[in-house]
Amino acid sequence: MARWEPNAPQRLARAALTLFAERGYDATTVNDIAERAGLTKSTFFRHCNDKREVLFLGQDVMTARLAETVRAIPPETPPAEVVAAVLDAVGVFFPSEYRSVSATRATVIAAHAELRERELLKSAELASAIESEARAQGRGETAARFLAAVGLLALDTAYRRWIADPDGRSYADHAGAALEEIVAQASELPDAARARRG
Amino acid sequence: MARWEPNAPQRLARAALTLFAERGYDATTVNDIAERAGLTKSTFFRHCNDKREVLFLGQDVMTARLAETVRAIPPETPPAEVVAAVLDAVGVFFPSEYRSVSATRATVIAAHAELRERELLKSAELASAIESEARAQGRGETAARFLAAVGLLALDTAYRRWIADPDGRSYADHAGAALEEIVAQASELPDAARARRG
Repeated sequence: MARWEPNAPQRLARAALTLFAERGYDATTVNDIAERAGLTKSTFFRHCNDKREVLFLGQDVMTARLAETVRAIPPETPPAEVVAAVLDAVGVFFPSEYRSVSATRATVIAAHAELRERELLKSAELASAIESEARAQGRGETAARFLAAVGLLALDTAYRRWIADPDGRSYADHAGAALEEIVAQASELPDAARARRG
Repeated sequence: MARWEPNAPQRLARAALTLFAERGYDATTVNDIAERAGLTKSTFFRHCNDKREVLFLGQDVMTARLAETVRAIPPETPPAEVVAAVLDAVGVFFPSEYRSVSATRATVIAAHAELRERELLKSAELASAIESEARAQGRGETAARFLAAVGLLALDTAYRRWIADPDGRSYADHAGAALEEIVAQASELPDAARARRG
């Protein structure tokens, strides 16, 4: 009978990232990861279908949390506040002590096409969660899709800058700055359209 | 020696879509596609690595065209006009007579996870082309990424509505409407952020 292992997904993900940093993604086996996490290979396969999946173990939790966050936001809330809430909600996944493993993870993903494809799928799931919860809250199709696109852009911008920041500023700092810049960009879109019509 | 076949990619793509509509994606072989296109199997494999690739044969041409379009736009051009130019540039790929095969293609992609992954990769390539050309034109990081995100949202919205439109309105009509709605959404983002600060 399968034993219940506390925090198995987190332990597997951390062990995998440590090993990928030490010896590279290709040279690390599923056995290595399970052993480093102090778990069995069969526990590994209860949580992941394959080695590439181990890098995305936390993602479903994050998507669920985002969906929950958007679901709890009243429909009349201005879109910039929804995006701010989305950025806030994921902050818990990016504490400062995860910065260097997150950077390693990003490097590994960038170097492997099949991991990059998986990451795109996970981002699409995040966007789709934001969109469908926003629609369920009564927002229109374009409003919901715009929220999802801007939310993803803000998340991705904040995350990229956070992992690459040599000064180690927090994810929350980067998230705030990213949102302000995106809002500034958004403000240029309608003005130009008006100028064109007028 | 390989014979040069005029329009082989287009012929393969059309043949594939016709067969997918007739007998389904899974029941169609590479041989069937080559035969229907009046081409050999080896011509098929000169253009596609596998069956799923045949659905994305036109995409690289579209990405190249988009890149060229953005490259030709002066850096001081307002972002809404860049998005309008992007929407215009791809219109040539969506003439009315392609609407029903495009709808079939979308249905096939939606039903197969590996095709959905490939489509996300192709969309990411489109976004990345817009972003890097906009940066090369001197736009800032966030400006270029915002343009790419909004451009993709507009393209995708217009495309989805075009293939699903029972009244058969043109892609250009849907593109214009999508852009207006997105600009209206963008106009709400800064107002709300200002209201929050103020």
